[in-house]
Amino acid sequence: MKIPVSRLEKFTSDNARVDTAAIQSLPNSRKIYIQGSRADIRVPMREISQSDTNTSQGIEKNPPICVYDTSGPYSDPDTNIDIRHGLLPLREKWIEEREDTEVLSGLSSSYSLKRLQDPALTAMRFNLTRPVRRAKGGSNVTQMHYARRGIITPEMEFIAIRENQRRERVTDLAKSELLTRQHPGQSFGAAIQEWITPEFVRDEVARGRAIIPANINHPEAEPMIIGRNFLVKINANIGNSALGSSIQDEVEKMTWAIRWGGDTVMDLSTGKNIHETREWIIRNSPVPIGTVPIYQALEKVDGKAEELTWEIFRDTLIEQAEQGVDYFTIHAGVRLPFVPMTAKRMTGIVSRGGSIMAKWCLAHHKESFLYTHFEDICEIMKAYDVSFSLGDGLRPGSIYDANDEAQFAELKTLGELTKIAWKHDIQTMIEGPGHVPMHLIRENMDLQLEHCHEAPFYTLGPLTTDIAPGYDHITSAIGAAMIGWYGTAMLCYVTPKEHLGLPDKDDVKDGIITYKIAAHAADLAKGHPGAQIRDNALSKARFEFRWNDQFNLSLDPDKARQFHDETLPQEGAKLAHFCSMCGPNFCSMKITQDVRDYAAQQGISENEALQEGMAKKADEFIEKGGEIYRKL
Amino acid sequence: MKIPVSRLEKFTSDNARVDTAAIQSLPNSRKIYIQGSRADIRVPMREISQSDTNTSQGIEKNPPICVYDTSGPYSDPDTNIDIRHGLLPLREKWIEEREDTEVLSGLSSSYSLKRLQDPALTAMRFNLTRPVRRAKGGSNVTQMHYARRGIITPEMEFIAIRENQRRERVTDLAKSELLTRQHPGQSFGAAIQEWITPEFVRDEVARGRAIIPANINHPEAEPMIIGRNFLVKINANIGNSALGSSIQDEVEKMTWAIRWGGDTVMDLSTGKNIHETREWIIRNSPVPIGTVPIYQALEKVDGKAEELTWEIFRDTLIEQAEQGVDYFTIHAGVRLPFVPMTAKRMTGIVSRGGSIMAKWCLAHHKESFLYTHFEDICEIMKAYDVSFSLGDGLRPGSIYDANDEAQFAELKTLGELTKIAWKHDIQTMIEGPGHVPMHLIRENMDLQLEHCHEAPFYTLGPLTTDIAPGYDHITSAIGAAMIGWYGTAMLCYVTPKEHLGLPDKDDVKDGIITYKIAAHAADLAKGHPGAQIRDNALSKARFEFRWNDQFNLSLDPDKARQFHDETLPQEGAKLAHFCSMCGPNFCSMKITQDVRDYAAQQGISENEALQEGMAKKADEFIEKGGEIYRKL
Repeated sequence: MKIPVSRLEKFTSDNARVDTAAIQSLPNSRKIYIQGSRADIRVPMREISQSDTNTSQGIEKNPPICVYDTSGPYSDPDTNIDIRHGLLPLREKWIEEREDTEVLSGLSSSYSLKRLQDPALTAMRFNLTRPVRRAKGGSNVTQMHYARRGIITPEMEFIAIRENQRRERVTDLAKSELLTRQHPGQSFGAAIQEWITPEFVRDEVARGRAIIPANINHPEAEPMIIGRNFLVKINANIGNSALGSSIQDEVEKMTWAIRWGGDTVMDLSTGKNIHETREWIIRNSPVPIGTVPIYQALEKVDGKAEELTWEIFRDTLIEQAEQGVDYFTIHAGVRLPFVPMTAKRMTGIVSRGGSIMAKWCLAHHKESFLYTHFEDICEIMKAYDVSFSLGDGLRPGSIYDANDEAQFAELKTLGELTKIAWKHDIQTMIEGPGHVPMHLIRENMDLQLEHCHEAPFYTLGPLTTDIAPGYDHITSAIGAAMIGWYGTAMLCYVTPKEHLGLPDKDDVKDGIITYKIAAHAADLAKGHPGAQIRDNALSKARFEFRWNDQFNLSLDPDKARQFHDETLPQEGAKLAHFCSMCGPNFCSMKITQDVRDYAAQQGISENEALQEGMAKKADEFIEKGGEIYRKL
Repeated sequence: MKIPVSRLEKFTSDNARVDTAAIQSLPNSRKIYIQGSRADIRVPMREISQSDTNTSQGIEKNPPICVYDTSGPYSDPDTNIDIRHGLLPLREKWIEEREDTEVLSGLSSSYSLKRLQDPALTAMRFNLTRPVRRAKGGSNVTQMHYARRGIITPEMEFIAIRENQRRERVTDLAKSELLTRQHPGQSFGAAIQEWITPEFVRDEVARGRAIIPANINHPEAEPMIIGRNFLVKINANIGNSALGSSIQDEVEKMTWAIRWGGDTVMDLSTGKNIHETREWIIRNSPVPIGTVPIYQALEKVDGKAEELTWEIFRDTLIEQAEQGVDYFTIHAGVRLPFVPMTAKRMTGIVSRGGSIMAKWCLAHHKESFLYTHFEDICEIMKAYDVSFSLGDGLRPGSIYDANDEAQFAELKTLGELTKIAWKHDIQTMIEGPGHVPMHLIRENMDLQLEHCHEAPFYTLGPLTTDIAPGYDHITSAIGAAMIGWYGTAMLCYVTPKEHLGLPDKDDVKDGIITYKIAAHAADLAKGHPGAQIRDNALSKARFEFRWNDQFNLSLDPDKARQFHDETLPQEGAKLAHFCSMCGPNFCSMKITQDVRDYAAQQGISENEALQEGMAKKADEFIEKGGEIYRKL
């Protein structure tokens, strides 16, 4: 990979802001902060204001709608971000106050030290001035550890406020239940709460049903939670490969991904300089960062899986933990006995981590060192509060291989490992497939809940057919929405480039929006309280021809507006009671309004229209003065 | 609308072929015809050839894969289509042979005659030279009528061959079950057959569980079937509005839609010259054409719903039936008593047809003339074999309104009307929603089966959330895949422009491919025999790094190739054992192959790796000679 020094060097003055496209305010949106029980708990949200509705009774105010905001300080016009310095460490004080960590005099990883001492890397190195921390000897600094001791951390309170999305305000401001009413959901036995309290957050973390990925060395991150009883989250993968993209590109993809709603970002870089790339990403990321440490360990042995050792892997874990990675994908369930189970598969082992470990196991005729050293790994995780994302190295890579013996043998093992991790109070989630036809998705969720004791499920898709490369964001969004409904806590996005190439920024955005759709569809189906407010507000705007409000409330205001304007670019059309789909004389909503107006004009005489067979409805109708549609 | 005479006039010589983009052969594909019991039953399919696999044992031939082909003669290089003359009438002889129709001396619709006599329309008029037919007095010419009398028509035999997709050939040619094995499905009580026979087609049509839209005046159409026990079909909507697009544009959208897999096309034009536009579309369409006649009837009364009369509507039905429309959407379930049920809705009545009829009902204080004249409508339908698509005029237009009283009151009425239609042996399907959150989709399917006696369900989406205008092909594909799995027979596509504007050709393609994904995911989940062959073939190609085969077998070879080539344009990369996602040293599939090679090299000594806890698997492993992956 070409070292992108020149691109980083251009940031030498106060214009060192990354990716101007990512920091533009979304239309009619403003960043707000809700304060918690202490001044430094300031929970960010995006408030979308709406225009008024003109009704025959006068002006109706439409309340502003708050939405979950993953974009961090980038969307705060009062913040000036210099990516050379990274974001402000909002959690630093909380971590210090707990007095269970110590500042290290130097980095503990020999690889980190080597990189630090290499003068050739000076130009591309992020200049970290803050000290690195680790748990004091014998301490356990995980959120799960605190939770199990009954402690509600500031992180937990932050999350409770964040999850509620300030929906009480809509209830207060809205004149009718039109905005707040929603369908009772079907949650398949989840424990969905009417209102998320800090105590509920603590309890869910304590029992392992949710995790808060929050490395003590990533104090820049805004706390968030991954669990079946909270809003469904999505992850965006970024990362360069040996073939393309630079550090700068990856930081830009990160800020781009969180602008559109990525709740966490995984840096899956596999080229050179992954250490430096990762540092830049973490220092500038307000969302948790996940990695697959075995990728970098493999780079350290020049791609020769058989040369991997526990010592190299261990040093890599410490290296990344001290940089602040919030969760590690570790394929400790790819056990030697399971490898032959993949022999008759259509597509063998498609997980990179899984295939590396399978290769290692065979080369050494030995059980995986990730499995045999699992408790050693736990010791590292709890010293920094890195969460486990137990990787599904044997996930199916084709419809043919779905739900086979290898896959479920590994899943069971991941359940055993979860118990070990929990013994150490380490937060743990479980990764899931892959390629699965619709009718076999539910079995994945049910077995995961059973074998893994309700630890959060984190799935890739699943893709519901193999036949649409170029559209796998869609083949997988179908499966993702369904498994999210069934209980998956976080959905790993798939971009249109899946199976074909490295995603660019357009692909990242397509993947994010598609997965926001899947996650939200799942929230609606589960009946997550307040989930329907945004749908209601947008549909009300649509029905009332408030075009701009419809665009602004959507997941992608830019595209909604652009599509509308392709045929009706004039600003006046934003107030028009039609669009180009049907033309001015044919809009069904306009006709509906005509029906209502007509009925209102006819007044009480409309009763005559209420003939036999509609007596019950008729009474109600007459009471309201014979208007066909609700008064605006 | 500007009369597009100049655009049509350019087709004055033998170059009068429409839309050259639509007639390019797809890569490595050839048009084949499977002959039935008589020489003029020639069922088109697209055969995709594959390259060989190089294995350690030599060359393995990969069989060609046949896929369902909706593109008609356009993709046949031996056919020269002049759109001024339309397609050859492949069903003409079959219709004549039945001797139950008569050639009309002139058109029966007064509107048609008026248009024919208008000299201003000469330049834009399709010059139909073939006579128009109608059932002989008292005859019933529907496929259902024949089916119920035990007659297997050539149409039915054509369909049986078409539905089987020649999959017996893959079984014969493939060396292993890798291509043909598939997961047992979950079909929710459907009667999926291992092999479709002409008799099964007849029986399904006779009992009303499937329809063959096949107007005797559209002999150009290739027979196809819509039913729960057949492959899930998709419909593409086209049509101009008063604001844009020309006749030429619409014909091009039709050929474009069928190139990518549209099984039927609805012409929803609402501007002027809909009569002429429709004629051009039908004469050049190898797939059934559906319309919503009330749209045109409304044009005839200058958009004033209250001025609609049964006589105008009746003349419109005859006008369109004599042009060859294969199915009519008729909103006869929007009854006067149901209109007030929509009063408290978020988005009122969003169906255009529904809102027109609601307005009419209120204006006249009368029951809908579509409902009161339903038997009169039946008389017209059976004289031309036009199928009913009973419209869901009260479908929900927002998540808020899903599954409400109005929607289900109408659905019940559609069930009553189905019985009346069946009394006349008229083929009937039922239209469905709309906007429905995931957990309420199943109820729609279950109630439709119950109330409508298993008549085929034809749904629009449903959209599973309202918050993503610009991406409603995706919000709806989630719901479409699910309801297709539950039993919907045809999915009406939604394009990215839904709610925002008129779809252009790119949108049409995006909508089609997205819905092909949903329909195929449904076929897989139902366990439709042979559905998994294409997935298996594509995944095998993917695993073996046959990049071109992977592209060619996909729903959109152009896009798959384009995405791959963005980073690796060299032709050599089509043989490379990696892509740009992971780079040359990191492809998991390459590593998997390395694992297999390594294991093969180690041979029997690999046994030593098979340690405790894997005894059962180990035995099998040893028997096979210790190879980790199947022999190629």
